Amino acid sequence: MIGIFDSGIGGMTVARAVEQLLPEYSILYLGDIARTPYGTKSPETIIDYSLRNTEFLLEKGSEMIVIACNTASSVATERLRQEFKVPIVEVITPAVQEVIARTRTGRIGVIGTRATIRSNIYEKTLNSLHPDYKVYSEACPLLVPLVEEGWMNKRETKMILRRYLHPLINKQIDTLVLGCTHYPLLKELIQPRIGRRVTLVDSSIETARYLEKFLRENPQVVSRPAGEVTHTYYVTDLTDSAQQVATHIFKRNVELKLV
Amino acid sequence: MIGIFDSGIGGMTVARAVEQLLPEYSILYLGDIARTPYGTKSPETIIDYSLRNTEFLLEKGSEMIVIACNTASSVATERLRQEFKVPIVEVITPAVQEVIARTRTGRIGVIGTRATIRSNIYEKTLNSLHPDYKVYSEACPLLVPLVEEGWMNKRETKMILRRYLHPLINKQIDTLVLGCTHYPLLKELIQPRIGRRVTLVDSSIETARYLEKFLRENPQVVSRPAGEVTHTYYVTDLTDSAQQVATHIFKRNVELKLV
Repeated sequence: MIGIFDSGIGGMTVARAVEQLLPEYSILYLGDIARTPYGTKSPETIIDYSLRNTEFLLEKGSEMIVIACNTASSVATERLRQEFKVPIVEVITPAVQEVIARTRTGRIGVIGTRATIRSNIYEKTLNSLHPDYKVYSEACPLLVPLVEEGWMNKRETKMILRRYLHPLINKQIDTLVLGCTHYPLLKELIQPRIGRRVTLVDSSIETARYLEKFLRENPQVVSRPAGEVTHTYYVTDLTDSAQQVATHIFKRNVELKLV
Repeated sequence: MIGIFDSGIGGMTVARAVEQLLPEYSILYLGDIARTPYGTKSPETIIDYSLRNTEFLLEKGSEMIVIACNTASSVATERLRQEFKVPIVEVITPAVQEVIARTRTGRIGVIGTRATIRSNIYEKTLNSLHPDYKVYSEACPLLVPLVEEGWMNKRETKMILRRYLHPLINKQIDTLVLGCTHYPLLKELIQPRIGRRVTLVDSSIETARYLEKFLRENPQVVSRPAGEVTHTYYVTDLTDSAQQVATHIFKRNVELKLV
């Protein structure tokens, strides 16, 4: 079973991509809605929550863990790898690999939560491989609440996006990392505002592709169910708007189970 | 010592009013920033967090509790009064009393978080005393993140406020309850948008006044320090933006202590 966790519902964009790319595997998802959001909180608190989420998923039978949250990936991956022996996949490396494959000018933009941007993880990782790359980052803390409210098509969301993206437009980037698993839901608003020539790198889809490759190379890590596969979606709190956004992401009714 | 808790920093608007009205008392504040916000979460989760916050404040020597959060007041007050013997003051009753004193037409608006509005607490309480009052409520879930970002003067905040207040304008209310302790920080934006003739009722200030009256009538409940009074501000997580908003509210540097 593949265990996936996120601070809330954003990571379901990863889970949906995994369901589609790897239909032969069972999935166990945990959305920590009771403590959402992570992106405005301190590294210590994010690490503490990530440890608890991982313990929960392992107790329930997960054979590996996917951190489907850029914030938790940025600050908690190292600690989780120290504490647990199972393979841990995070969302940064897959997005970084895709950036390297796609950029031509080496001028790269990154948007994410305050915690992700403050960790500087994308810049550090990209520059460790390509010291010549110029990486420009912008924290966009209001995008998560706007998505969780379902305001994907409101004028105010477009204005706020324009304000956040403005500093990046002057930097003549050719690639923009959507460094938060909520942001794929805003892709259609982001593309025209950042410019049609800028390639958007979706960390959710890249992570699912990375996982597919990982499991092809390491098939022994996760067992495939002999009978039907199961996709179980746990949450630490149950709210109407979480249910609505889940339905929007999966384009089907998903039963959210309270832990 | 007076114990005050909130989901985060909004309740500091209550704490500041208490500092000013009751300078002879020591205050112990707890802002549950690690789990903020409460307003988008379920009643069960909000009750659980409120119980833990109250236990913390009592262990540290509080002699009474002020729930400086409309969301927690709406859904957790009854349970806290069952569990604990100390007096518990919440923010709804003081605001309701002020509404009754101020309204002439009995047409009242209430704005708050999703959890507060869903609880219907203002409408129930007002109508139990005055069945003829017409109470119109609007959930404004994005105002808390906007305030926590310090976007008190941004054009987008004004537009979002106009969108939220629009349905109330048609209702010809004469009184509007700011039913969230973050909203006093938006008072100057709300007044011109709802209309100069509408009286704004600030639940933070009313709660401090209510507490002042309560302690004048029940001076035995809270001891007055013989020496200097102390104002201690605990938080469950420490972030830069919390520190900034705290400074904005108190108009001085406030030391936030991590629990």
